[in-house]
Amino acid sequence: MNATSTENRAEVCASGNLRGREVRLKSRPANELRPEHLEIVEVDVMPPAPGEFLVRNSWMSVDPAVRIRMGEGSTGYLAPFELGEPLLGWAVGQVVASSAEGFRPGDHVLHQLGWREYASLVPDGGGTQPPVLIEVDARTPERAYMGPLGWVGLTSYVGLLDVAELRSGDIVFVSAAAGAVGSLVVQIAKLRGHRVIGSAGSAEKVAFVTDRLGADAAFCYRDRPVGESLARVAPDGIDVYFDNVGGAHLEAALDVLRPRGRVALCGAISTYDTSGVASGPSNLFSAVAKGLTLRGFMARMYADRMTQFRADMRAWLQDGRIFYPEEVFEGIENAPRALIDLLAGATMGKVIVRFEGGAPHG
Amino acid sequence: MNATSTENRAEVCASGNLRGREVRLKSRPANELRPEHLEIVEVDVMPPAPGEFLVRNSWMSVDPAVRIRMGEGSTGYLAPFELGEPLLGWAVGQVVASSAEGFRPGDHVLHQLGWREYASLVPDGGGTQPPVLIEVDARTPERAYMGPLGWVGLTSYVGLLDVAELRSGDIVFVSAAAGAVGSLVVQIAKLRGHRVIGSAGSAEKVAFVTDRLGADAAFCYRDRPVGESLARVAPDGIDVYFDNVGGAHLEAALDVLRPRGRVALCGAISTYDTSGVASGPSNLFSAVAKGLTLRGFMARMYADRMTQFRADMRAWLQDGRIFYPEEVFEGIENAPRALIDLLAGATMGKVIVRFEGGAPHG
Repeated sequence: MNATSTENRAEVCASGNLRGREVRLKSRPANELRPEHLEIVEVDVMPPAPGEFLVRNSWMSVDPAVRIRMGEGSTGYLAPFELGEPLLGWAVGQVVASSAEGFRPGDHVLHQLGWREYASLVPDGGGTQPPVLIEVDARTPERAYMGPLGWVGLTSYVGLLDVAELRSGDIVFVSAAAGAVGSLVVQIAKLRGHRVIGSAGSAEKVAFVTDRLGADAAFCYRDRPVGESLARVAPDGIDVYFDNVGGAHLEAALDVLRPRGRVALCGAISTYDTSGVASGPSNLFSAVAKGLTLRGFMARMYADRMTQFRADMRAWLQDGRIFYPEEVFEGIENAPRALIDLLAGATMGKVIVRFEGGAPHG
Repeated sequence: MNATSTENRAEVCASGNLRGREVRLKSRPANELRPEHLEIVEVDVMPPAPGEFLVRNSWMSVDPAVRIRMGEGSTGYLAPFELGEPLLGWAVGQVVASSAEGFRPGDHVLHQLGWREYASLVPDGGGTQPPVLIEVDARTPERAYMGPLGWVGLTSYVGLLDVAELRSGDIVFVSAAAGAVGSLVVQIAKLRGHRVIGSAGSAEKVAFVTDRLGADAAFCYRDRPVGESLARVAPDGIDVYFDNVGGAHLEAALDVLRPRGRVALCGAISTYDTSGVASGPSNLFSAVAKGLTLRGFMARMYADRMTQFRADMRAWLQDGRIFYPEEVFEGIENAPRALIDLLAGATMGKVIVRFEGGAPHG
């Protein structure tokens, strides 16, 4: 987007004729999320009030954890979404009008008001993570901030290095290894010289995890009990388990973790799309016997690592040492489908939505 | 015991006329341990072969974890006991005859061959923890090594300071707070200036935890759901949970732990005396949302902390800043009852057995 079009949009905006669509929570899903739980509504986009700025979103991240906030709450997680309100999620876009200091038309911004075409923001985030200016160039396009250079990338990086305290010689097991986070974890662990085992939900994904991402072994968790598959590919046990799914995977990992092993609890996608109470691992006691550490985290808790992480990841991306798979859905009208497919395990890599008018190669 | 009696015993031993009793596992308990699962057998005590030494036990520690090893195994814990073999557990006693370097008649020894009146030992432990010489004097009698100066003490100390990484201002919750480990954890945390909450299994124990051990608050977990009681006495939440019991306690603690809170997984006595598969905490996902750490441990993993621990604990005991409750059972014939009562929650403080001829004040 060039300066002229930015100015034009700002004028349109100022004239009050701008309209944009947003995805709202219509009803709370009891089990699987279905299209009727969400609705897409077109609303007037107001010019920024003093202290505000307006961003036209180009790309949006679709994250499984959004599903958690559609429930009534009580998991100790982020507050549930209100019915009738738009969802929240990471997005990038350009400022089209601003009455806020530090944000000028044309600036590229990473912020949390996704799930809408236009985002009205304040510099302190107003209850969400504060929006930040991002550098965009040919090598690091906007969309990279939805994936490897954004929170997803930080999650992989700190989860493996800080939370699981990756040590020389560790054997690493990653679940959802073909997913947005898992695919990076596999590659970072390989870069560091580790033996890496992945699990995924289809033969195609399993082949992708070994052939494209470079894992030493992988299995499809739908073929047979996870414990059996894991024991087969990890006869010597594992030292680190990067847990994206919870449930049976965690239980299987606890069985084969070696003394002083570590689990990074990153997510539990196997439990998000259900109403039932999740049952914890029946073998948690093995943590006593083996001196295991289980540590939960969200990337925001490690925000102070963002600078170091971005420097490392930029270098890896530029050297071609990290490859980042994406699955792109076109237009906000397909954002609900993107999330439903992601929760069903029907996607591969990072799921993002390109908004109408977003740069084709972003 | 003086030098003369030691020599006499060595002679008796050498003459081959010595006999001693031991407690053997007769059958594996499916649920509650009952007297018929154990048997007490008198056996010949043989003089030490080359490289061996013989100890007459004075005191024996009764630990809930012994119950785990009566099962078929598979918890990833120490190997199960063999049927027909004597149990294992910490004991102290004096060498009565020795053909091993470094162990002389009269020496006081801490070792793992409890549950028998005479223990035939080798310096490297022969598959158990190596026996160690201990200093015994009026202020630190033999029995102290079964409790505050032994593995139980180290468990409390490293569990709180190393495993749970106790930090200034932490609110600490301890389950089984009237027990062998819990009673020390409460007092160490109070010494460090923390707010401490305990749970126990009777009104008498609750009063003991607050009035004698100095906890700020305590509740009886049998009165109502643990979560309700804990929420009442910890309205601001907790930062550290020292888990001796597992089950509902752990689930309740996960609910009220504050961000970056820590759990030291020390034991799960609530699950030992049952055959069913333990169900893990249904709310483990809160560890993700709150960035919690759960870390299992056994004191042996922190053996390098023994010297520092003993120095601190000796000073606390001598200053009267730590008080150590004990429940003493007399004679090996009462050792099975001691364990059964301990598992049923019918004891208070550290459960130890004084063997016939053990010093009355140890």
